[in-house]
Amino acid sequence: MDTRTGLPVVGMVGGGQLARMTHQAAIALGQSLRVLSVSPDDSAALVAADVRIGTHTDLAALREFAKGCDAVTFDHEHVPTGHIATLAAEGVKIYPGADAIVFAQDKQRMRERLSELGAPVPRWRPVSTAADIADFAAEVAAARRSDKARVSDKTNNSGTGSDKASGSGSGKDSGSGGEQTGWPVVAKAVRGGYDGRGVWMLPDAAAAEELVATGTPLIVEERVPLQRELAALVARSPFGQVAAYPVVETVQRDGICVEVLAPAPGLSEERALEAQQLAIDLANALGVVGLLAVELFETPAGLVVNELAMRPHNSGHWTIEGSRTSQFEQHLRAVLDYPMGETSLTAPAVVMANVLGGPPGGMPIDERLHHLFAADPGVRVHLYGKQVRPGRKIGHVTVLGDDMASVRARAVRAARRLQEGE
Amino acid sequence: MDTRTGLPVVGMVGGGQLARMTHQAAIALGQSLRVLSVSPDDSAALVAADVRIGTHTDLAALREFAKGCDAVTFDHEHVPTGHIATLAAEGVKIYPGADAIVFAQDKQRMRERLSELGAPVPRWRPVSTAADIADFAAEVAAARRSDKARVSDKTNNSGTGSDKASGSGSGKDSGSGGEQTGWPVVAKAVRGGYDGRGVWMLPDAAAAEELVATGTPLIVEERVPLQRELAALVARSPFGQVAAYPVVETVQRDGICVEVLAPAPGLSEERALEAQQLAIDLANALGVVGLLAVELFETPAGLVVNELAMRPHNSGHWTIEGSRTSQFEQHLRAVLDYPMGETSLTAPAVVMANVLGGPPGGMPIDERLHHLFAADPGVRVHLYGKQVRPGRKIGHVTVLGDDMASVRARAVRAARRLQEGE
Repeated sequence: MDTRTGLPVVGMVGGGQLARMTHQAAIALGQSLRVLSVSPDDSAALVAADVRIGTHTDLAALREFAKGCDAVTFDHEHVPTGHIATLAAEGVKIYPGADAIVFAQDKQRMRERLSELGAPVPRWRPVSTAADIADFAAEVAAARRSDKARVSDKTNNSGTGSDKASGSGSGKDSGSGGEQTGWPVVAKAVRGGYDGRGVWMLPDAAAAEELVATGTPLIVEERVPLQRELAALVARSPFGQVAAYPVVETVQRDGICVEVLAPAPGLSEERALEAQQLAIDLANALGVVGLLAVELFETPAGLVVNELAMRPHNSGHWTIEGSRTSQFEQHLRAVLDYPMGETSLTAPAVVMANVLGGPPGGMPIDERLHHLFAADPGVRVHLYGKQVRPGRKIGHVTVLGDDMASVRARAVRAARRLQEGE
Repeated sequence: MDTRTGLPVVGMVGGGQLARMTHQAAIALGQSLRVLSVSPDDSAALVAADVRIGTHTDLAALREFAKGCDAVTFDHEHVPTGHIATLAAEGVKIYPGADAIVFAQDKQRMRERLSELGAPVPRWRPVSTAADIADFAAEVAAARRSDKARVSDKTNNSGTGSDKASGSGSGKDSGSGGEQTGWPVVAKAVRGGYDGRGVWMLPDAAAAEELVATGTPLIVEERVPLQRELAALVARSPFGQVAAYPVVETVQRDGICVEVLAPAPGLSEERALEAQQLAIDLANALGVVGLLAVELFETPAGLVVNELAMRPHNSGHWTIEGSRTSQFEQHLRAVLDYPMGETSLTAPAVVMANVLGGPPGGMPIDERLHHLFAADPGVRVHLYGKQVRPGRKIGHVTVLGDDMASVRARAVRAARRLQEGE
């Protein structure tokens, strides 16, 4: 409790843009976010009043940081679960807990637990050798042949069998013939991947050999015939209240989320409810406190869980203006065990587009912003105060309106203006 | 320019809630507001990263503060115009300039200038003695008799002559008989009044005598038969671009704004445009850079200007969620000479209600907030991190929806919950 205000203190480990935007939300609640930042120049450290410098792997630093916090939470998923468990045992309210966050840190544990829970996952397997991967590809091929046989047995009148594999996300371009051979398979580092890093599309046994030789602990997954990617975002409090946001479509390029469309266009009410229920069930089953983002593949056979994140998530940035309660405020409410906020949309169509650092040189960012504001006075801009580096997420824009196609076009154009300065 | 980010630095003199909310807006623009605060416990100083401690009357402190700022602006109107002019002469971009802000500091200068410009003002006069005030009351009475005579000469069929004097704002309860005698008259301190302070309703000559004896420099104004109070908020950039917000109704109690209804219910399109045009004309004529709030009385005879403010204003807090661009971002855009943002409403009805400090004791503020969130998950809360003192503005709430009556009822209820803890 901050004795100056009578309001709680939340500490966030990590000083990135998620902490930066959480601080904005904290201000409205009468709080000031405490930030544990590696550098004083980190995104959140530039704007928060209560910044401690330290690393998230240093237990002593975490312990010191937690003193006087009503709750401690995370800007990323890299805090060792052992440290989280230690602090919790010492009485720190630290969310999500070690027993939950491990499923966002360790893809093998996540896949195991989701399989146990009966959640829809792609075929997958932990692997240690290239032979394991080849075996897996063979298994996938066999399973697909058997699936196909079963489908042929049924009457062929569904009309929805156009398994056009999209080229986005971890299901990158594969060429054709996958159904015959099981290749390509998707390999994922068990730990540490994000924004497309730690994910590899393996076209054949030779590529598998090469990857295994790096010594990275891996799982492999079947490449699912995804139609698009969705995300279901929920928040859960220690009391057990869960609030679900409208399901969104996420558009990826090179493994990085570039656009989020809210609500997911053309998604049936039934499918949307299914995705929300899945996220709610997972939040409950995994004991998540705070936000849980469930990244999903939409396939002809239904939804498949791709990844889990337990923190404010890129797929929820649109909520700052697009939902009655932003994901950042919702996360604070959850970890403080406040009642959850309303999650309804504030406009029929909301699109968030990430702003990535463009090529070096060219127009300074301030000038780009000036041009953007002149071109589109209604676009909402969020810059993270980061040095521009090619491909780095340096901000995002949000556009709200009535028509998804035009809203999306405006958002994409706005992001491009900030990115490329034209 | 902040070399770490390539984005500008705005300095705001004063560390109150306006600076606090401006910092939130600055974060989205990639900036971090620099705050000159009297105390480290001031509302904005609790949440901003770049806080300098100093007073706004200290030229040396202002000069030091302005170093490295791309623009300097104000959380309040108490910086001496001499200091502002000095800094401007030294090359500081400081907005609004001394020549403009004087009209928000000095009510006599404001009334003189508005009269020159032909803007609608109540009958008024600077006074130094109780006899001056009695003379003014007599003049008002004579003028009203002559107005009445003129009206009687015309055919009496307009049907809109119900000059029911409202009891709010500076036109507090007067009893009856004002039209015969000119009393009560409204006395205002030439400088330094706000939130009902520095405004007195004088019922008679004895009260005038008593007030004059305090030595406060005064003007007096006719008590206009106001139907309600409105506010027109505009922003103007050095380039001369002006953006106008929808006109709102402000509801006062004991001289303090308690509710703001956006858009002003039942206001004709014609009257709304008139109010916006008036504010735009004044912003241009006075050379305002940044926000200009024009507080208006709506009377049977038309609009009358009550007060001017040149900074983010209580009548614009609703814009954080209720307009596409918040007044705080708009003010930053204006003083940085960025193009102005869109001002359209995000919902058909938006109501802001101020949260005043309640009686001492009772439920702690954090617990009140918990109860409010449980009762109304859709209300937006802004707490300023201030110690609770009776009558002090400690925060505000905003509710958005389709129906003004129900939106207003929710906002009032929410504010009361935070205020009284029931």
